[in-house]
Amino acid sequence: MLRHIVLLRWTPEATTAQRRAAEAGFQALPRAVEEIRALSCGGDLGLTGGAHDFAAVLDFADADGWRAYQEHPAHRALVADLLKPILAERATVQFDV
Amino acid sequence: MLRHIVLLRWTPEATTAQRRAAEAGFQALPRAVEEIRALSCGGDLGLTGGAHDFAAVLDFADADGWRAYQEHPAHRALVADLLKPILAERATVQFDV
Repeated sequence: MLRHIVLLRWTPEATTAQRRAAEAGFQALPRAVEEIRALSCGGDLGLTGGAHDFAAVLDFADADGWRAYQEHPAHRALVADLLKPILAERATVQFDV
Repeated sequence: MLRHIVLLRWTPEATTAQRRAAEAGFQALPRAVEEIRALSCGGDLGLTGGAHDFAAVLDFADADGWRAYQEHPAHRALVADLLKPILAERATVQFDV
Protein backbone atom coordinates (compact mmCIF):
# COMPACT_ATOMS: atom_id res chain seq x y z
CA MET A 1 0.00 0.00 0.00
CA LEU A 2 1.14 3.56 -0.70
CA ARG A 3 0.71 6.21 1.98
CA HIS A 4 0.59 9.83 0.80
CA ILE A 5 1.29 12.59 3.32
CA VAL A 6 0.81 16.28 2.71
CA LEU A 7 1.44 19.03 5.26
CA LEU A 8 0.19 22.51 4.40
CA ARG A 9 0.89 25.93 5.82
CA TRP A 10 -1.72 28.61 5.21
CA THR A 11 -1.08 32.24 4.44
CA PRO A 12 -1.53 34.71 7.32
CA GLU A 13 -4.53 36.11 5.42
CA ALA A 14 -6.40 32.77 5.36
CA THR A 15 -9.73 33.06 7.15
CA THR A 16 -11.25 30.47 9.46
CA ALA A 17 -13.94 29.86 6.83
CA GLN A 18 -11.31 29.19 4.17
CA ARG A 19 -9.41 26.80 6.46
CA ARG A 20 -12.61 24.92 7.26
CA ALA A 21 -13.54 24.74 3.58
CA ALA A 22 -10.13 23.26 2.77
CA GLU A 23 -10.54 20.59 5.46
CA ALA A 24 -14.10 19.82 4.33
CA GLY A 25 -12.80 19.53 0.78
CA PHE A 26 -10.35 16.82 1.85
CA GLN A 27 -13.00 15.01 3.88
CA ALA A 28 -15.23 14.87 0.79
CA LEU A 29 -12.55 13.36 -1.47
CA PRO A 30 -13.12 9.65 -0.69
CA ARG A 31 -16.70 9.95 -1.96
CA ALA A 32 -15.41 11.27 -5.30
CA VAL A 33 -12.14 9.37 -5.80
CA GLU A 34 -12.59 5.61 -5.62
CA GLU A 35 -8.83 4.98 -5.49
CA ILE A 36 -8.64 6.45 -1.96
CA ARG A 37 -8.56 3.51 0.47
CA ALA A 38 -8.40 5.66 3.62
CA LEU A 39 -8.10 9.31 4.57
CA SER A 40 -7.38 11.15 7.79
CA CYS A 41 -6.84 14.87 7.99
CA GLY A 42 -7.06 17.77 10.37
CA GLY A 43 -5.75 21.08 11.58
CA ASP A 44 -2.65 21.30 13.72
CA LEU A 45 -3.35 21.21 17.47
CA GLY A 46 -0.73 23.85 18.31
CA LEU A 47 1.29 21.59 20.61
CA THR A 48 4.65 22.63 19.19
CA GLY A 49 6.18 25.68 17.56
CA GLY A 50 6.88 25.80 13.85
CA ALA A 51 4.30 23.18 12.89
CA HIS A 52 2.48 23.33 9.58
CA ASP A 53 -1.24 24.19 9.81
CA PHE A 54 -2.89 21.14 8.29
CA ALA A 55 -2.14 17.48 7.56
CA ALA A 56 -3.72 14.89 5.29
CA VAL A 57 -2.84 11.18 5.14
CA LEU A 58 -4.27 9.25 2.18
CA ASP A 59 -3.78 5.55 1.44
CA PHE A 60 -3.82 4.01 -2.03
CA ALA A 61 -3.35 0.46 -3.25
CA ASP A 62 -0.28 1.46 -5.25
CA ALA A 63 1.40 4.25 -7.22
CA ASP A 64 -1.15 3.95 -10.03
CA GLY A 65 -3.93 4.70 -7.54
CA TRP A 66 -1.99 7.71 -6.28
CA ARG A 67 -1.49 8.96 -9.86
CA ALA A 68 -5.20 8.59 -10.59
CA TYR A 69 -5.89 10.71 -7.50
CA GLN A 70 -3.40 13.37 -8.59
CA GLU A 71 -5.19 13.70 -11.94
CA HIS A 72 -8.76 13.30 -10.68
CA PRO A 73 -11.00 16.33 -11.37
CA ALA A 74 -12.22 16.39 -7.75
CA HIS A 75 -8.65 16.62 -6.47
CA ARG A 76 -7.69 19.23 -9.06
CA ALA A 77 -10.72 21.31 -8.11
CA LEU A 78 -9.85 21.10 -4.39
CA VAL A 79 -6.31 22.27 -5.10
CA ALA A 80 -7.30 25.09 -7.44
CA ASP A 81 -10.38 26.38 -5.63
CA LEU A 82 -9.74 25.79 -1.91
CA LEU A 83 -6.03 25.18 -1.31
CA LYS A 84 -4.02 27.40 -3.65
CA PRO A 85 -5.78 30.64 -2.62
CA ILE A 86 -4.56 30.20 0.97
CA LEU A 87 -1.43 28.07 0.49
CA ALA A 88 1.90 29.38 1.79
CA GLU A 89 3.93 26.16 1.98
CA ARG A 90 3.57 22.45 1.23
CA ALA A 91 5.58 19.42 2.33
CA THR A 92 4.93 15.91 1.05
CA VAL A 93 6.16 12.31 1.13
CA GLN A 94 4.87 9.12 -0.49
CA PHE A 95 6.02 5.87 1.10
CA ASP A 96 5.21 2.16 1.11
CA VAL A 97 3.39 0.68 4.08
CA MET B 1 -6.67 9.79 19.15
CA LEU B 2 -3.76 12.08 18.27
CA ARG B 3 -1.87 11.54 15.01
CA HIS B 4 1.68 12.88 14.86
CA ILE B 5 3.27 13.42 11.45
CA VAL B 6 6.89 14.27 10.83
CA LEU B 7 8.49 14.73 7.42
CA LEU B 8 12.28 14.92 7.28
CA ARG B 9 14.73 16.02 4.63
CA TRP B 10 18.27 14.67 4.88
CA THR B 11 21.44 16.56 4.16
CA PRO B 12 23.11 15.86 0.80
CA GLU B 13 25.97 14.25 2.75
CA ALA B 14 23.71 11.65 4.43
CA THR B 15 24.83 8.13 3.51
CA THR B 16 22.53 5.22 2.70
CA ALA B 17 23.64 3.57 5.94
CA GLN B 18 22.69 6.66 7.93
CA ARG B 19 19.27 6.86 6.24
CA ARG B 20 18.65 3.18 6.94
CA ALA B 21 19.71 3.59 10.57
CA ALA B 22 17.28 6.49 10.99
CA GLU B 23 14.40 4.42 9.58
CA ALA B 24 15.35 1.42 11.72
CA GLY B 25 15.44 3.72 14.73
CA PHE B 26 11.85 4.77 14.11
CA GLN B 27 10.75 1.17 13.53
CA ALA B 28 12.21 0.21 16.92
CA LEU B 29 10.39 2.96 18.85
CA PRO B 30 7.12 1.10 19.57
CA ARG B 31 9.05 -1.56 21.48
CA ALA B 32 10.55 1.13 23.73
CA VAL B 33 7.73 3.67 24.06
CA GLU B 34 4.50 2.14 25.30
CA GLU B 35 2.47 5.27 24.50
CA ILE B 36 2.86 4.63 20.74
CA ARG B 37 -0.38 3.00 19.54
CA ALA B 38 0.71 2.67 15.92
CA LEU B 39 3.63 3.66 13.73
CA SER B 40 4.22 3.71 9.99
CA CYS B 41 7.29 5.20 8.39
CA GLY B 42 9.39 5.01 5.28
CA GLY B 43 11.54 6.70 2.71
CA ASP B 44 10.04 8.78 -0.06
CA LEU B 45 9.31 6.83 -3.24
CA GLY B 46 10.47 9.62 -5.55
CA LEU B 47 7.13 9.98 -7.35
CA THR B 48 7.12 13.78 -7.23
CA GLY B 49 9.66 16.58 -7.20
CA GLY B 50 10.39 18.53 -4.04
CA ALA B 51 9.27 15.82 -1.63
CA HIS B 52 10.88 15.39 1.76
CA ASP B 53 13.02 12.23 2.14
CA PHE B 54 11.29 10.41 4.97
CA ALA B 55 7.92 10.29 6.74
CA ALA B 56 6.76 8.92 10.08
CA VAL B 57 3.15 8.69 11.28
CA LEU B 58 2.69 7.89 14.98
CA ASP B 59 -0.62 7.52 16.81
CA PHE B 60 -1.14 8.25 20.51
CA ALA B 61 -4.19 8.07 22.74
CA ASP B 62 -3.99 11.79 23.45
CA ALA B 63 -1.66 14.78 23.87
CA ASP B 64 -0.28 13.38 27.13
CA GLY B 65 0.85 10.26 25.30
CA TRP B 66 2.48 12.42 22.64
CA ARG B 67 4.27 14.47 25.32
CA ALA B 68 5.54 11.30 27.01
CA TYR B 69 6.96 10.23 23.63
CA GLN B 70 8.64 13.59 23.10
CA GLU B 71 10.42 13.25 26.44
CA HIS B 72 11.12 9.52 26.30
CA PRO B 73 14.85 8.63 26.41
CA ALA B 74 14.49 6.29 23.41
CA HIS B 75 13.02 9.11 21.31
CA ARG B 76 15.61 11.61 22.51
CA ALA B 77 18.40 9.18 21.66
CA LEU B 78 16.97 8.61 18.16
CA VAL B 79 16.84 12.35 17.53
CA ALA B 80 20.31 13.09 18.91
CA ASP B 81 22.19 10.08 17.56
CA LEU B 82 20.52 9.20 14.26
CA LEU B 83 18.42 12.13 13.03
CA LYS B 84 20.19 15.37 13.88
CA PRO B 85 23.51 14.37 12.26
CA ILE B 86 21.78 14.08 8.85
CA LEU B 87 18.81 16.43 9.28
CA ALA B 88 18.39 19.32 6.84
CA GLU B 89 14.69 20.15 7.30
CA ARG B 90 11.70 19.02 9.37
CA ALA B 91 7.96 19.55 8.93
CA THR B 92 5.39 18.41 11.48
CA VAL B 93 1.68 18.45 12.34
CA GLN B 94 -0.27 16.94 15.24
CA PHE B 95 -4.00 16.47 14.65
CA ASP B 96 -6.99 14.69 16.13
CA VAL B 97 -8.34 11.60 14.40
